[in-house]
Amino acid sequence: MDCIFCKFVTGEIPVKKLYENEGAVAFLDISPLSKGHSLVIPKKHFVKSFEMDSQAWASVADAISQTSKLLVEKLGIKDYNILQNNGKLAHQEVQHVHFHIIPKTDSSGLEIKWNPIKIDTDSLFKFLVE
Amino acid sequence: MDCIFCKFVTGEIPVKKLYENEGAVAFLDISPLSKGHSLVIPKKHFVKSFEMDSQAWASVADAISQTSKLLVEKLGIKDYNILQNNGKLAHQEVQHVHFHIIPKTDSSGLEIKWNPIKIDTDSLFKFLVE
Repeated sequence: MDCIFCKFVTGEIPVKKLYENEGAVAFLDISPLSKGHSLVIPKKHFVKSFEMDSQAWASVADAISQTSKLLVEKLGIKDYNILQNNGKLAHQEVQHVHFHIIPKTDSSGLEIKWNPIKIDTDSLFKFLVE
Repeated sequence: MDCIFCKFVTGEIPVKKLYENEGAVAFLDISPLSKGHSLVIPKKHFVKSFEMDSQAWASVADAISQTSKLLVEKLGIKDYNILQNNGKLAHQEVQHVHFHIIPKTDSSGLEIKWNPIKIDTDSLFKFLVE
């Protein structure tokens, strides 16, 4: 499979690992939004996060936790975003699940726009759950 | 503690649960960016995600996984963002860790701006890890 993140996992393309466990790897984003912007990926190939199995989730959660702590401790950051994009509309660029950890400062990091919409949440809840 | 999400957990304020496990709860965001915009919170109170213990991470990961699958299956969404904000600069509004799951369509969902910066990642890697 021609997936750059799979090649990081196999070692075909070298990557400097910030953290690694049985099922996940963390490394610095080569095109960062801020100093310390890191990525956590499952070693197994999944395109979208809802496809991940429980072992991949466990490994990814541990790697996000450890990498966040590393950034907080070493860089002294206080604010950061965790972001995981699924699909083209949601800005997914590499077709292998990746979680961004993005330190936020006044001048760098993730910029988001928050435009709430009106929804009948009671009806939606019934549709989803009942 | 005067935390609205802790009150959801204890039942002091009723919340309609999309999913629940031992350590986490999922429910619809009352001010959604898109249809199906949901939140996953750990039952235990943590302000920022790097503070979470491994049990909280495991519960939250399971709840994100199950809630994402529910939204994908029931709403037929294909694209979505997972977002978790830490600190005021990073747009955290409730001081209890919460993961957003936000379906993305052309007309609704999370809007992000992506402005990469130049970083000497080799030096940064050395500083972080070596």
